[in-house]
Amino acid sequence: MRAEVRGLKVLPPETCLRLLDAHPVHLGRLAANDLDGQPFILPVNYRVDGTSIVIRTQPQSFIAQRALRRRVAFEADDVDAVWQDGWSVLVRGTAERVTDVVELDRLRQLPLHPWAPGDRSLYIRIAPTLITGRQIV
Amino acid sequence: MRAEVRGLKVLPPETCLRLLDAHPVHLGRLAANDLDGQPFILPVNYRVDGTSIVIRTQPQSFIAQRALRRRVAFEADDVDAVWQDGWSVLVRGTAERVTDVVELDRLRQLPLHPWAPGDRSLYIRIAPTLITGRQIV
Repeated sequence: MRAEVRGLKVLPPETCLRLLDAHPVHLGRLAANDLDGQPFILPVNYRVDGTSIVIRTQPQSFIAQRALRRRVAFEADDVDAVWQDGWSVLVRGTAERVTDVVELDRLRQLPLHPWAPGDRSLYIRIAPTLITGRQIV
Repeated sequence: MRAEVRGLKVLPPETCLRLLDAHPVHLGRLAANDLDGQPFILPVNYRVDGTSIVIRTQPQSFIAQRALRRRVAFEADDVDAVWQDGWSVLVRGTAERVTDVVELDRLRQLPLHPWAPGDRSLYIRIAPTLITGRQIV
């Protein structure tokens, strides 16, 4: 992505994860492809767990049906409209359902409380293949 | 997407466009697929023009090389972290380069000023095939 980053500062992956972890409201966006190949984006509450992103959704949700075992993108940003500065981080990887009971017990302790209502018992982990970030400076 | 919207209010397309047009800072996100089919998301400044979304980018940018003449998704939202309410709108469609000189002259009058630096002379129009929105109530 360096072709576009003239004037933007490229952030290393460790900084990206630190920024995601410290996001004031832990709201990001998930993109995947619909069944016909049409991309979609939906807002998601998330938490950072190690080097991966964890989200919660309903077992039969739109996201669950279209993202699991597929390549997805996750993005979060924090921008200041007045100063027109800020950062954005892009995580690319595959979305996997968390099934291990010990891992699930641990993830349920995370302060991951989606704002949207519903039975959000499905935990999805996005294991990154690439983490990139940019800061407007 | 109704399967996931229990407790969420589905917004009609006209309301979605009105919310996008009135967005306080006109910052949204664009998703498309990279050359190998891996989805990505990048933040973009945008404006509503009629029923479509217009963004500006550099002619050789990451977005220009991967989104033009392809199916894309555009999302914007406005959420209140304290009340945990707000809306999000998803526009699905195809990204096309604007080449008509009269149309370009008109679009250059829009208050569309990307925060990121660089020669942003390429105007891209996302003509929607589907506009959906949800409000947390």
